[in-house]
Amino acid sequence: MNYLKIFSPATVANVSCGFDALGLALETVGDTMTFTKTATKGIKITQITGADLPLDAKVNAAGVVALAMLEKHPADFGIDITIHKGYTPGSGLGSSAASAAGAAFGVNQLLGNSFTPLELTQFAMLGEEATCGTPIADNVSAAIYGGFTLVRSYEPLSIVKIPVPADLRVVAIHPQVEVKTKDARAVLPKEITLKDAVTQWANVGGLISGLHSNDYQLIADSLTDIIVEPARKHLIPHFDEVKQQAIKAGALGAGISGSGPTIFTLCKGDETAESVYKTIQNTYQDKQIDFNMILSKINTEGIKILDTN
Amino acid sequence: MNYLKIFSPATVANVSCGFDALGLALETVGDTMTFTKTATKGIKITQITGADLPLDAKVNAAGVVALAMLEKHPADFGIDITIHKGYTPGSGLGSSAASAAGAAFGVNQLLGNSFTPLELTQFAMLGEEATCGTPIADNVSAAIYGGFTLVRSYEPLSIVKIPVPADLRVVAIHPQVEVKTKDARAVLPKEITLKDAVTQWANVGGLISGLHSNDYQLIADSLTDIIVEPARKHLIPHFDEVKQQAIKAGALGAGISGSGPTIFTLCKGDETAESVYKTIQNTYQDKQIDFNMILSKINTEGIKILDTN
Repeated sequence: MNYLKIFSPATVANVSCGFDALGLALETVGDTMTFTKTATKGIKITQITGADLPLDAKVNAAGVVALAMLEKHPADFGIDITIHKGYTPGSGLGSSAASAAGAAFGVNQLLGNSFTPLELTQFAMLGEEATCGTPIADNVSAAIYGGFTLVRSYEPLSIVKIPVPADLRVVAIHPQVEVKTKDARAVLPKEITLKDAVTQWANVGGLISGLHSNDYQLIADSLTDIIVEPARKHLIPHFDEVKQQAIKAGALGAGISGSGPTIFTLCKGDETAESVYKTIQNTYQDKQIDFNMILSKINTEGIKILDTN
Repeated sequence: MNYLKIFSPATVANVSCGFDALGLALETVGDTMTFTKTATKGIKITQITGADLPLDAKVNAAGVVALAMLEKHPADFGIDITIHKGYTPGSGLGSSAASAAGAAFGVNQLLGNSFTPLELTQFAMLGEEATCGTPIADNVSAAIYGGFTLVRSYEPLSIVKIPVPADLRVVAIHPQVEVKTKDARAVLPKEITLKDAVTQWANVGGLISGLHSNDYQLIADSLTDIIVEPARKHLIPHFDEVKQQAIKAGALGAGISGSGPTIFTLCKGDETAESVYKTIQNTYQDKQIDFNMILSKINTEGIKILDTN
């Protein structure tokens, strides 16, 4: 294989109760990336479209990952990478993660599939660390494994792929305001009461059980976050209104995607998803804030190969 | 139905990572209770064997539950209750919960099955409140629903029954030392770091996923408690040694059952369970502390009817 074109999905991390532990991958939103073997050794990012990001591989999420992989697994060729960002960085939909995970996947293909998905996740985490300051795994694991993923442990890294009920849909709104991950982390409590922690982990258990058993009511009941959402929601304009209206329109639940500002909802079936989509759109129509809407299936496959030769 | 004899199981609450949220029911250990319709209205506890507990219905876990049920659902008959405690109160195996849950189940049978399992759990929680000071649901829900149960929410009460892999076995040791629930609660931290909470809820998610998918390795990896066990284990003599030896002998994991002093382990299959049983027994043989050993399947049914007429 000398050339590879892939789709690397956008991801929703946290998923209400599962702060820093849960993620899910989207079907219709993500980056398109190409990887081409070259005679000159090393990594070159030759083109980035769709967003203003550094071409210098040493400071680009995808570049950092690719360089680390070649250091671990030296090759007698180089790789040119192009990235088309299919959505805006800073949305809370794992933009750096999509590029980092995509790079891990793509470079691995050209290296003859030398690494496991867990190792790819570890490489991709280097891209997260380089761009966000934290080697967080929830977005990159969801992009690489697809579906819902649970980061069960960091030391050692352990990723669990959770089954996804077939009718689950994601509707999300990305208001065009800036929420820096750093700021979103700064508002979090360092300590929480044991009582609140118990409430939260009971909901994590409920959500995981609901996903395994296709129990949409249990999923809905468990999509509750009493710790992170209350601390962060003021950073996102009209969060409460969007959430309330979405649930009124039939959404199973709603929350902050990653560190925001995107607000995600989970819905059962296309009809409800479309109704929730319109409701959220109407809610934001008169707010004097630009926004993008998303409606997507859950991407159960993860990163997809679009073309090779 | 004028008479009913039941078995109400002992239960392991918390199950390592799931403090105040998870419970499981045992097959071979529990209370035997009878319920007999009488002409004189009211609840009378006519006999308790196997433990020294009050016969006065107003202060007995089973009595409190039965009285509350008759208040909610008046009957033109009375009920005589006998209780044979099959194991020692204060063991950390939900002794008051077995009697409270058993009373809820038995009285409901004589009332013509008027209440749902969720309502029975709510009644049984009154017995827990009367005897332990807290209307905790993890033990009573496991006794009533059987198998593994998750108390997903208290307000409103929501219980989720989690599937149980067929080869799962419980081996436990009950050292004959007293650990008061009140003392075991007093050593708990009121606040924990968000970081530790994330670690814990990721393990709760892993455990629930492992139970759903028969993934014994995932169950083993997830049986970790970084919050409650470190705070409590000094109350239980030789806890670390028992845990280490049990895991060395093949146990999936070990932890404190409820608020102790019983130490439980989960094992895959009878052979490993027997080997873990012997190992723990040997560990405690020279400790100058009396102890009971338990080896049990998980009781997936909950409370069982032994006889009626």
